[in-house]
Amino acid sequence: MEKVNIGVIGVGRIGRLHARNLKYQVPGARVLAVADIFEKSAREVASQLEIPIAEKDYRILLENVDIDAVVICSSTDTHAQIISEAAEAGKHIFCEKPIALDLNKIDHAITAVKKAGVKLQVGFNRRFDPSFKKAKELVKNGTIGTPHLVRITSRDPEPPPISYIKVSGGIFLDMMIHDFDMARYLLDQEVVELMAVGSCLVDPAIGEAGDIDTAIVTLKYENGAWGTIDNSRKAVYGYDQRIEVFGSEGCVMVGNLRSTEVTVNGAQDTKSNKPLYFFIERYKQAYLDEMEEFIKCIKENKEPSVGGFDGKISVQMGYAAKESLTKGNFIKLVK
Amino acid sequence: MEKVNIGVIGVGRIGRLHARNLKYQVPGARVLAVADIFEKSAREVASQLEIPIAEKDYRILLENVDIDAVVICSSTDTHAQIISEAAEAGKHIFCEKPIALDLNKIDHAITAVKKAGVKLQVGFNRRFDPSFKKAKELVKNGTIGTPHLVRITSRDPEPPPISYIKVSGGIFLDMMIHDFDMARYLLDQEVVELMAVGSCLVDPAIGEAGDIDTAIVTLKYENGAWGTIDNSRKAVYGYDQRIEVFGSEGCVMVGNLRSTEVTVNGAQDTKSNKPLYFFIERYKQAYLDEMEEFIKCIKENKEPSVGGFDGKISVQMGYAAKESLTKGNFIKLVK
Amino acid sequence: MEKVNIGVIGVGRIGRLHARNLKYQVPGARVLAVADIFEKSAREVASQLEIPIAEKDYRILLENVDIDAVVICSSTDTHAQIISEAAEAGKHIFCEKPIALDLNKIDHAITAVKKAGVKLQVGFNRRFDPSFKKAKELVKNGTIGTPHLVRITSRDPEPPPISYIKVSGGIFLDMMIHDFDMARYLLDQEVVELMAVGSCLVDPAIGEAGDIDTAIVTLKYENGAWGTIDNSRKAVYGYDQRIEVFGSEGCVMVGNLRSTEVTVNGAQDTKSNKPLYFFIERYKQAYLDEMEEFIKCIKENKEPSVGGFDGKISVQMGYAAKESLTKGNFIKLVK
Amino acid sequence: MEKVNIGVIGVGRIGRLHARNLKYQVPGARVLAVADIFEKSAREVASQLEIPIAEKDYRILLENVDIDAVVICSSTDTHAQIISEAAEAGKHIFCEKPIALDLNKIDHAITAVKKAGVKLQVGFNRRFDPSFKKAKELVKNGTIGTPHLVRITSRDPEPPPISYIKVSGGIFLDMMIHDFDMARYLLDQEVVELMAVGSCLVDPAIGEAGDIDTAIVTLKYENGAWGTIDNSRKAVYGYDQRIEVFGSEGCVMVGNLRSTEVTVNGAQDTKSNKPLYFFIERYKQAYLDEMEEFIKCIKENKEPSVGGFDGKISVQMGYAAKESLTKGNFIKLVK
Repeated sequence: MEKVNIGVIGVGRIGRLHARNLKYQVPGARVLAVADIFEKSAREVASQLEIPIAEKDYRILLENVDIDAVVICSSTDTHAQIISEAAEAGKHIFCEKPIALDLNKIDHAITAVKKAGVKLQVGFNRRFDPSFKKAKELVKNGTIGTPHLVRITSRDPEPPPISYIKVSGGIFLDMMIHDFDMARYLLDQEVVELMAVGSCLVDPAIGEAGDIDTAIVTLKYENGAWGTIDNSRKAVYGYDQRIEVFGSEGCVMVGNLRSTEVTVNGAQDTKSNKPLYFFIERYKQAYLDEMEEFIKCIKENKEPSVGGFDGKISVQMGYAAKESLTKGNFIKLVK
Repeated sequence: MEKVNIGVIGVGRIGRLHARNLKYQVPGARVLAVADIFEKSAREVASQLEIPIAEKDYRILLENVDIDAVVICSSTDTHAQIISEAAEAGKHIFCEKPIALDLNKIDHAITAVKKAGVKLQVGFNRRFDPSFKKAKELVKNGTIGTPHLVRITSRDPEPPPISYIKVSGGIFLDMMIHDFDMARYLLDQEVVELMAVGSCLVDPAIGEAGDIDTAIVTLKYENGAWGTIDNSRKAVYGYDQRIEVFGSEGCVMVGNLRSTEVTVNGAQDTKSNKPLYFFIERYKQAYLDEMEEFIKCIKENKEPSVGGFDGKISVQMGYAAKESLTKGNFIKLVK
Repeated sequence: MEKVNIGVIGVGRIGRLHARNLKYQVPGARVLAVADIFEKSAREVASQLEIPIAEKDYRILLENVDIDAVVICSSTDTHAQIISEAAEAGKHIFCEKPIALDLNKIDHAITAVKKAGVKLQVGFNRRFDPSFKKAKELVKNGTIGTPHLVRITSRDPEPPPISYIKVSGGIFLDMMIHDFDMARYLLDQEVVELMAVGSCLVDPAIGEAGDIDTAIVTLKYENGAWGTIDNSRKAVYGYDQRIEVFGSEGCVMVGNLRSTEVTVNGAQDTKSNKPLYFFIERYKQAYLDEMEEFIKCIKENKEPSVGGFDGKISVQMGYAAKESLTKGNFIKLVK
Repeated sequence: MEKVNIGVIGVGRIGRLHARNLKYQVPGARVLAVADIFEKSAREVASQLEIPIAEKDYRILLENVDIDAVVICSSTDTHAQIISEAAEAGKHIFCEKPIALDLNKIDHAITAVKKAGVKLQVGFNRRFDPSFKKAKELVKNGTIGTPHLVRITSRDPEPPPISYIKVSGGIFLDMMIHDFDMARYLLDQEVVELMAVGSCLVDPAIGEAGDIDTAIVTLKYENGAWGTIDNSRKAVYGYDQRIEVFGSEGCVMVGNLRSTEVTVNGAQDTKSNKPLYFFIERYKQAYLDEMEEFIKCIKENKEPSVGGFDGKISVQMGYAAKESLTKGNFIKLVK
């Protein structure tokens, strides 16, 4: 296989980003087609990026024998169904997170993938961020000894629209799901129980929509280490994405990225840039690197480093956090 | 009152430090006497610092009409009793934390102080650290808006001897007590409930002594904000003392202090100094500033900013954390 | 003009980089052709980047009426000649620095450009670096008041091959030329005189080739401000690119960029990443942004912000530095 | 000798600081007397610090057989004379910089010291700063290989009064003298020639007083390394004291110190503290450490690490810089 022929399903913001990356920056890929229920969007993206095929119905892409793989960026409620169909059509699959909010649907999708023997990579982009990746390597190679504590801070610069909040599955399944995955990734360890607290401090409308906007989750890992994750839907200073792994021989920390390295020494104080605005800016490289990994796995017939199992576990953790918030105590995670 | 005449009771490491600071760097104070059950220590310190009186029995200091105030640095189990006696003798009191591990004893001591109308300042030195003080001021003046999240990291460079662990009251009453006080101080808010987790990850001998060495406590404040504190008895890189208050309009952070501002750019990486070793180095200025405050309160007849009530609450929080660790759920703090 | 059709002349490392950027990341450009005296290289790049035309002789590109503009990345000694021919052919021109090492040739090229009325942008990529650009804006908008001192540190991670050193024109014309341009750019001020010192400290072979590898130049600006530039051909810790403008109301500094934001707190010290390796990594964004500016200037019929005059002045400064090094005193720059 | 008995001559700001440090923080010293031509000042300081003797005439201190050493902090024009007399009286001597502005007077003073066999330490306090000291050690132990470039930035937060400027000897002898000493100290190498530029950019009144307020000096070391020093009399953001030594194996840098480690992440930018205000704050530890060294040298009969020779060379460098500024070329330093 010289080039992997790709169809991108769903060309909203993140779908366009993947299409553009695959088209221009991943030499092993060829974007053959895009599909979107808003046909106009599909045509527009195809025209801009000089992609031959634009369809309203993704099934046409699945029927296209030239297409080797699909990148699923449609709305969350369609992911599981498309995964199953794509697997049956023998296509390799990259799917944005979460696979589904319904664990049964996730299981069906995973089963379909296994049966078909295709690749499935789930869009936990942060694993591909060079800084987090380096941090994980340092943990893995023993630089900080045995890990004892993990701290993850993850705060968005502003909340999504209330209409989105309502269908998002809530802060734990929509936002903290990335941090649950990061927590597992950093230590290569499963979380055995967790405890969530939180409330609505940013915007009462979020509370009225049945969600919270501020949360802290405490984790216990299978090897005895502890972790905390804190989330806020609104950090006025930008996307706050920091991690820390503390162990018997040291501590590895990842700080925020800034748009410039400019510092101004003034009569009042010393000023520097605030952190990058949001995920598109912060994880620019990670979005590219995850696509390169996906194409590489197909070409070299390797398993993606982040697959269906990871997609499922993170959703389970989200539900456990929701349950913990209601019950007020630790919730064990069943394997 | 031109100079406040001081007697220092207990001249171990911290007692000597206070005596030296009072003698040489607090112009409003005059150290008239020291007492220590190890009479030799008392004589040694008196000789070194040219202090006129050295006694074995602190009661002699309390009987000395020239002495206006005492600084109590004896072992924890003697604090409450000495406070009561000193109050009855009409002496103003600075007492190292904790006042006692027994809440009844704390109450008795506080009652004695109130009855006598003397000042009582408790040794929560970190409140006087210039960086933490500045952070608190920024929170108070609204720089970060309404506080939503507090994060406190507090890790010692190495555990105390096991013999000390055994009588320390445990990690929550001995070590995290400082962080409980810091948590209250930063927001000027009481904590209404808390939840503790932790285990013995640093040294099994600590577990055998009935204590843990790694802990995370989640706090809920009366105004709805949330907090987390993490403790470890051993950070190989030095005393790790960081705080963060996140609010609706920003986030204030305090990082660690280093011994020099030297950076080395080498072929492998960029190296800088690790954090200061331990509390003596890290809180050098704070130890001095708390004494200046104490003397100032006496001279200007003001209430110390950190007194008996703070001393009691922090111990109550320690007990709540111990209970939470056992029961596995949130513990409400009774007012 | 919907898209600007581009021919890239010379597809060594930097030519390929521009071709790739123009092809994939500059929506307003279309790369129609590449030329290289090594025809195989031209074909290879054309094939990789799916560019229709690959030629050995750049004149074929100049004769192609579909081509609107050329990007000249051939060897320095060919720049001036190609500029003149391209201008006569009515092509807009982007040319890598320096235009030529011979000032007469530069004048001829500039004259040809003026006569033809085409655009000429010179490849001083650093002006487009987001950090330096921001610094310049802060200087321009008066944030630091009246500039008094400029400090530029510019050190390569390793020297070029001796064969290159021999034809490079020497450190001032090959390496410091970028810093001369930066010095002018930061203040929007000309340098009226300069003084150079330097010697061969890195590698005796550089000295044997008639060049130096370590140099400091002191600058006097027309408005009375002073500047220093230091260069070294070898900084083992990576590409060291820092600037500082100090003025009556403050100081703006730009530090180095690193590949990750990882910090490791260890028992010995605190480690972080070294600076990015070299110009390809450090100025990745700048290389893209300068191409976007070039295309924008053509489409909107604007003068490039960095043109033939800047290309000439920087070479004049290089010769003045060479003369100063020989004579041991300040050399005035003639206008 | 159990304690070294000290007389402090001149109790302006710096004299008081030394007296206080010696009295309270240097265990090996005893301050027996102070002298000041403003007798009232002498009495005031003696009273505050409980020093037994206060005189108008320093000669009374020199005649006092109990006094082992003097600390000379009187006005610069009196230093050399007092050194000579003190030496003849057999007193060890600490003298603030410069020894004199007249090289003959310096020679006389040094000769007197040698003849008497007493210790002479000159007040180049910056050598004792923990960060600069560490940097020098790293250079000395080869961490950065062979030094190639030294960069010293030294900017005051505000200019002294014009009345002081007039008698100061000018920026090179009054201000940059510290940097000349630092340049020699960092490499343990002499400077063989130097070149100065500068002008009056901060305040025209300084120019009218015959001085400049902004200067850059380029240095050549005897081992071939190069250095630059930049000075400004006014940095609105505080005392800017940075150094950098670049060598074949790396680069050691020292940054500024700040009063707190507080960072505020706000909606506009990230703010941190500006550098410490001025020398009293910035070199607090250095002032103490230089006194400890002085006392130690007396008690252990060792030569001070910074003596009369260093005091002379730095003045010679100041005169060379003045000459260079006038002549516009490099000035060789005679040994």
